Amino acid sequence: MEANGFGLQNFPELKNDTFLRAAWGEETDYTPVWCMRQAGRYLPEFRETRAAQDFFSTCRSPEACCELTLQALQLFESHAGHLGTELFSKFALPYIRDVAKRVKAGLQKAGLAPVPMIIFAKDGHFALEELAQAGYEVVGLDWTVAPKKARERVGKAVTLQGNLDPCALYASEEEIGRLVQQMLDDFGPQRYIANLGHGLYPDMDPERVGAFVDAVHKHSRLLRQN
Amino acid sequence: MEANGFGLQNFPELKNDTFLRAAWGEETDYTPVWCMRQAGRYLPEFRETRAAQDFFSTCRSPEACCELTLQALQLFESHAGHLGTELFSKFALPYIRDVAKRVKAGLQKAGLAPVPMIIFAKDGHFALEELAQAGYEVVGLDWTVAPKKARERVGKAVTLQGNLDPCALYASEEEIGRLVQQMLDDFGPQRYIANLGHGLYPDMDPERVGAFVDAVHKHSRLLRQN
Repeated sequence: MEANGFGLQNFPELKNDTFLRAAWGEETDYTPVWCMRQAGRYLPEFRETRAAQDFFSTCRSPEACCELTLQALQLFESHAGHLGTELFSKFALPYIRDVAKRVKAGLQKAGLAPVPMIIFAKDGHFALEELAQAGYEVVGLDWTVAPKKARERVGKAVTLQGNLDPCALYASEEEIGRLVQQMLDDFGPQRYIANLGHGLYPDMDPERVGAFVDAVHKHSRLLRQN
Repeated sequence: MEANGFGLQNFPELKNDTFLRAAWGEETDYTPVWCMRQAGRYLPEFRETRAAQDFFSTCRSPEACCELTLQALQLFESHAGHLGTELFSKFALPYIRDVAKRVKAGLQKAGLAPVPMIIFAKDGHFALEELAQAGYEVVGLDWTVAPKKARERVGKAVTLQGNLDPCALYASEEEIGRLVQQMLDDFGPQRYIANLGHGLYPDMDPERVGAFVDAVHKHSRLLRQN
């Protein structure tokens, strides 16, 4: 990893391991929550860094990517819904499996501890069972998948992540709280990481993002008391 | 209907009733096939008619709509995937049910014979069971839904329609034939109307559309012989 210009010693110390515990399927005191990569688009400092060079130059610079996205290692498959069942099985799934296999082998070879991996395939509802067996600890869901049905389909061997409709963050804080509560009730307290069902939109109010995060922390603690 | 400026006497005489029989769930000698409303976009004569006035003027003119789209009465819900489970149940499904109810009541009141109705909800995979019980004889599927799974979920009380990926029509005629054969095998010979999983795109070659239609007719007859 040193060869890519960024070393492990530069990562900030973990404040807690709740997210990692949920990803590994361990019990947690509350539900961890994060927002996906596009999340940065709504932050002024993200847009400033991005504006410094064009998109493809950014993609080719590990330093720039690292600065823009210091977060969970997630494989994001944007095209599942465009591909459909047959093309997804042929052109996406084998490579999704291969990435998990290679990253895990690479970590082992480098003498590094295993990391939980997340797969998110937008509109990939049709391949949930396959994704749950593709070598990832966490399967992300978009907002068109009902939490209870997803859990029935994938079994208990993976952590689920998602899946509030991002547009919910245009609603009032009260409505966000109501929707988060419903989502947490449906996913249940364990083997679950809260998230939106897709990335944030650039015009979203950071205050509403805060309300979303706060609602997850609050309701997930209440859920465990009941 | 006379009040809207177009009368029943202007419809051409039916050449066969295969489509209607499939929609009603009756046996057919081959699988009927059609392409959805956007189909017109690829026809030069459609684009000429559309160019004569702006989109919203066209929408407000029953005569123009009639000229553009002389075909099966289908309810096309474009937003299912954007709405997701909760909003679809609240803002789409009740009105989808209501349209079926009112059209049927209206026909009966006017002393007209019942017509089979089709519901197509793009990316509405999560609501298949509800759509199959919404008062329509036919449920259209987009290309992200596996035919066999769809049949398992909706039971035998509706005809299914769909669902070749429209982009398949950019492939060779041989490949189109192979994909059509697979689709027909998966849906089976009865209670099925062949179609694409969405509309045609404006740049599509009418020859390929012809190849699609021919492949359905050919393979569906072969399927019934085996």
